[in-house]
Amino acid sequence: MHRTKIRIVEDALDANNTIARANREDFDRHHVAVVNLMSAPGAGKTSLLERVAADPPEGVRLGVLEGDVQGSLDADRLASLHIPVTQLNTDPGFGGECHLDANMVRSALPALPLDDVDLLVIENVGNLVCPAEFRVGEDVRAMVCSVTEGEDKPLKYPLMFRACELVLVNKIDLLEHLEFDLDRFLYYLDQVHPGVEHMLLSARTGDGVEAWRDWLGSVAHRQRVAA
Amino acid sequence: MHRTKIRIVEDALDANNTIARANREDFDRHHVAVVNLMSAPGAGKTSLLERVAADPPEGVRLGVLEGDVQGSLDADRLASLHIPVTQLNTDPGFGGECHLDANMVRSALPALPLDDVDLLVIENVGNLVCPAEFRVGEDVRAMVCSVTEGEDKPLKYPLMFRACELVLVNKIDLLEHLEFDLDRFLYYLDQVHPGVEHMLLSARTGDGVEAWRDWLGSVAHRQRVAA
Repeated sequence: MHRTKIRIVEDALDANNTIARANREDFDRHHVAVVNLMSAPGAGKTSLLERVAADPPEGVRLGVLEGDVQGSLDADRLASLHIPVTQLNTDPGFGGECHLDANMVRSALPALPLDDVDLLVIENVGNLVCPAEFRVGEDVRAMVCSVTEGEDKPLKYPLMFRACELVLVNKIDLLEHLEFDLDRFLYYLDQVHPGVEHMLLSARTGDGVEAWRDWLGSVAHRQRVAA
Repeated sequence: MHRTKIRIVEDALDANNTIARANREDFDRHHVAVVNLMSAPGAGKTSLLERVAADPPEGVRLGVLEGDVQGSLDADRLASLHIPVTQLNTDPGFGGECHLDANMVRSALPALPLDDVDLLVIENVGNLVCPAEFRVGEDVRAMVCSVTEGEDKPLKYPLMFRACELVLVNKIDLLEHLEFDLDRFLYYLDQVHPGVEHMLLSARTGDGVEAWRDWLGSVAHRQRVAA
């Protein structure tokens, strides 16, 4: 009984990976680099995207796929910056899915102007657990962690911190008003994902945003070289 | 095909509700009032529990069931305050379950000292989506929302804000350093869950914690009167 259950779960993951590969092939055909951006609710994914959408990396046409349980608040914020934004809502799922999977992203592909985009950022649903479990066809995964969430988060949500190639430590403008121990956070991060790249930044003040913009530019560039 | 899928989901929810009722009967038999406490990661559930654990409501013996994907960081924090704490980890689930369900709580019942507890707080996994979908046998549901998460959260995660009888608005000590519009947050909250009780508080400074303690005391008292 238990073995059967496990087999079903593995099949489900395999199906996701199959569809993720199909998405990947479509993105490659259009020479689009893809970032899967994840975080807890309110960590600042959209604000960090607003920063780069207003002033994108040199020569890079940015697009965004917005994942939300419902509504289009974030998509509206980004669309006002005149970049192509497609909204993907997960609420037709079981009470509202808490993550994007490859099939949801696939369903959005026809609505994405892939020929007009060099770099697509997929803003996942705010959640530190399940989004890390589902590839969607991205090149790289990045996450935002706000210093207001406390320094223990890498230890509590290790799969997420391990899944990402970049950890954006946001809201550093608030550090002076918090008891957040940055050294301890970075020590925990290194325990969970040794050597992972991280950046300290503030979407609000713009501190560190240049490095984030450069990183996105380099992801787009890698795809262009591979093409 | 679509109908079949829906039927399966309903069965799963029914099974959860069946087990939640069994939990409820066990809690009633031991005259234990139960609060299901939810929030996004890092909103301050544990810090708010530390505040009341250090100085519980008059005549109320507090106990905590700690839900985490893995580890026992929060349980360790609370156990140091000499209240009974039981850790429940969800990582045997599919990559780490992002919520508690009734069956997980049921599996923890034998480890809970129900005869020594009047009020059990179940600290759910940090997540604003799925925890709202699963009753675990609680009397009431409460959630913590930190002002650092932005005022749009009721609109983005309406099921969670609707599911709760109390919304704790935490980290108000940071309001002066944020662009958080409290009136707008409360307006959105009222749109999503008209008339729901809320409290403004800061686990860090202790502001508003008295009202949270009183609320927990009244939940325990109601169970005692019903018994």
